Amino acid sequence: MKAKIIITPKKAVLDPQGKTVQTALAQMGYTGIADVHIGKYIEIDLAPGTDKAMAQKMLNDAAHRLLSNPVIEDYKLELE
Amino acid sequence: MKAKIIITPKKAVLDPQGKTVQTALAQMGYTGIADVHIGKYIEIDLAPGTDKAMAQKMLNDAAHRLLSNPVIEDYKLELE
Repeated sequence: MKAKIIITPKKAVLDPQGKTVQTALAQMGYTGIADVHIGKYIEIDLAPGTDKAMAQKMLNDAAHRLLSNPVIEDYKLELE
Repeated sequence: MKAKIIITPKKAVLDPQGKTVQTALAQMGYTGIADVHIGKYIEIDLAPGTDKAMAQKMLNDAAHRLLSNPVIEDYKLELE
């Protein structure tokens, strides 16, 4: 089983990395880009036979405690 | 229209960030984690009325030239 966690800065938080990339894209001649947000992508391979509900609970907890900063970041967890 | 780009280190490339997170999760008592890979997530808002095929071509080019390092990273582009 594989888990994907996407961590993005909250909308209200300044995203300097995204702004920098947006400016760079514009300067390189790529037009029509309204906004850029940059976050982190974490892919976790779970040991075979892991219970899906247990894994969901564990990874939500881990995402909250270690992987993201809940003050300034949102995360989205997908299990497949 | 929104584009999502996920950039991950190639499988053959060492992923020290992923290994560190894997070790940290194990030390915090989260078990059953076989592997962790960490990459970047880029969300791009396109101006309304952008042509989908044009945007796809432009963003593939931008991902190759600026957003990812094709020597050590793979990227996946999704338009929606």
